[in-house]
Amino acid sequence: MSRDRWAVVLVSGGLDSCVCVAEAARTHALALLHVNYGQRTEARELHAFTAIADHYAAAQRLVVDVDHLARIGGSSLTDSTLRIEQGLPDRSAGVPSTYVPFRNAHLLSIGVSWAEVLGAEALFIGAVQEDSSGYPDCTTEFYDAYQAVVDAGTRPQTRIAVRTPLIDLDKPAIVRRSIALDAPLHLTWSCYLREDIACGRCESCRLRLRGFAGAGQDDPIPYAED
Amino acid sequence: MSRDRWAVVLVSGGLDSCVCVAEAARTHALALLHVNYGQRTEARELHAFTAIADHYAAAQRLVVDVDHLARIGGSSLTDSTLRIEQGLPDRSAGVPSTYVPFRNAHLLSIGVSWAEVLGAEALFIGAVQEDSSGYPDCTTEFYDAYQAVVDAGTRPQTRIAVRTPLIDLDKPAIVRRSIALDAPLHLTWSCYLREDIACGRCESCRLRLRGFAGAGQDDPIPYAED
Repeated sequence: MSRDRWAVVLVSGGLDSCVCVAEAARTHALALLHVNYGQRTEARELHAFTAIADHYAAAQRLVVDVDHLARIGGSSLTDSTLRIEQGLPDRSAGVPSTYVPFRNAHLLSIGVSWAEVLGAEALFIGAVQEDSSGYPDCTTEFYDAYQAVVDAGTRPQTRIAVRTPLIDLDKPAIVRRSIALDAPLHLTWSCYLREDIACGRCESCRLRLRGFAGAGQDDPIPYAED
Repeated sequence: MSRDRWAVVLVSGGLDSCVCVAEAARTHALALLHVNYGQRTEARELHAFTAIADHYAAAQRLVVDVDHLARIGGSSLTDSTLRIEQGLPDRSAGVPSTYVPFRNAHLLSIGVSWAEVLGAEALFIGAVQEDSSGYPDCTTEFYDAYQAVVDAGTRPQTRIAVRTPLIDLDKPAIVRRSIALDAPLHLTWSCYLREDIACGRCESCRLRLRGFAGAGQDDPIPYAED
């Protein structure tokens, strides 16, 4: 594998994005992109991003700070006066409070601009449609539509493929895939609430723990005692 | 006209966006959005935005600063080491250096997030396809594709129409429309190069001046003497 072509990979620092990096590393040179957008665990996620980037010796890295998503608000991830749901997501209750309105469109636009300037041929994002929180910007329909925007809105000679290798996997399958690819899950951070030790109760922790349990594996990160 | 529904309008402060505000003001309460992204004339454009927002007594305003477009680079609008083309655009020469890679996708994503939180039903942008610089993110194809992204990537109950009322107009038609709508063109700024007085030579000035000439009107802003 020559890996002489770049891929931009969006890396939050969580389980899914770490596996996504592992997928991209099989075929591409890595340009890793992290966005701080005022989420509660911003500092811990950046720490995880850096550790994952170091693990893969990523030659290109870009960390972007945006403050407008938190200023616009409307999400419990960026507004500490709103309550984050506990436990596994209840899809019948609609989109959860942790939805950051249209967030992934922001992340993709930054990734596409960087990819166009680098001449990268792919943009990876670790979005998961099933076995997830039910965010509208984590659906196949959304990424298919975004591909058409990328094709129309960049230079005629630019070709950037939007890649979502985890979109149809459930969490146990993602954990199994991480083991097959030797992804460094001990470096990741998924908790929505805490930065010192994962809470084990928020929907992100619960989805993660269910994934490890379903795969028959131990999660390598510690959790707070109940 | 009740104007009891919000529209978010992207306002650079130039001729086209001013006419776009005038169009939106006919039917909607105004939520005006301006983005500073490190373009050379950032301060002058913000001044024009504020003057236009005051003129229309816009009740909602949002000014966003992003530094990543300039950091990512690849455009003479944000990189002063690159030369901005003089004179009218030469469409046969391809996309000009002033293209900011995928910029309008960034602007739209901010507008959609704000519109979703406000409950706005429309997002206006003054993009012009013909008689323009030939940017790929100013085409009907791009905005049609973006509408599909908005529909897929927001909450099921969210309905935001992406509106491009100028997309098929040439510059003389835009000037004539501005007069019909009594848009305050004396408050606008279009020059890519200068902030004190419009240069009259860059592609943006030349397109603007050609529009006024074609409409048989005088441009109310002064230009540098040659």
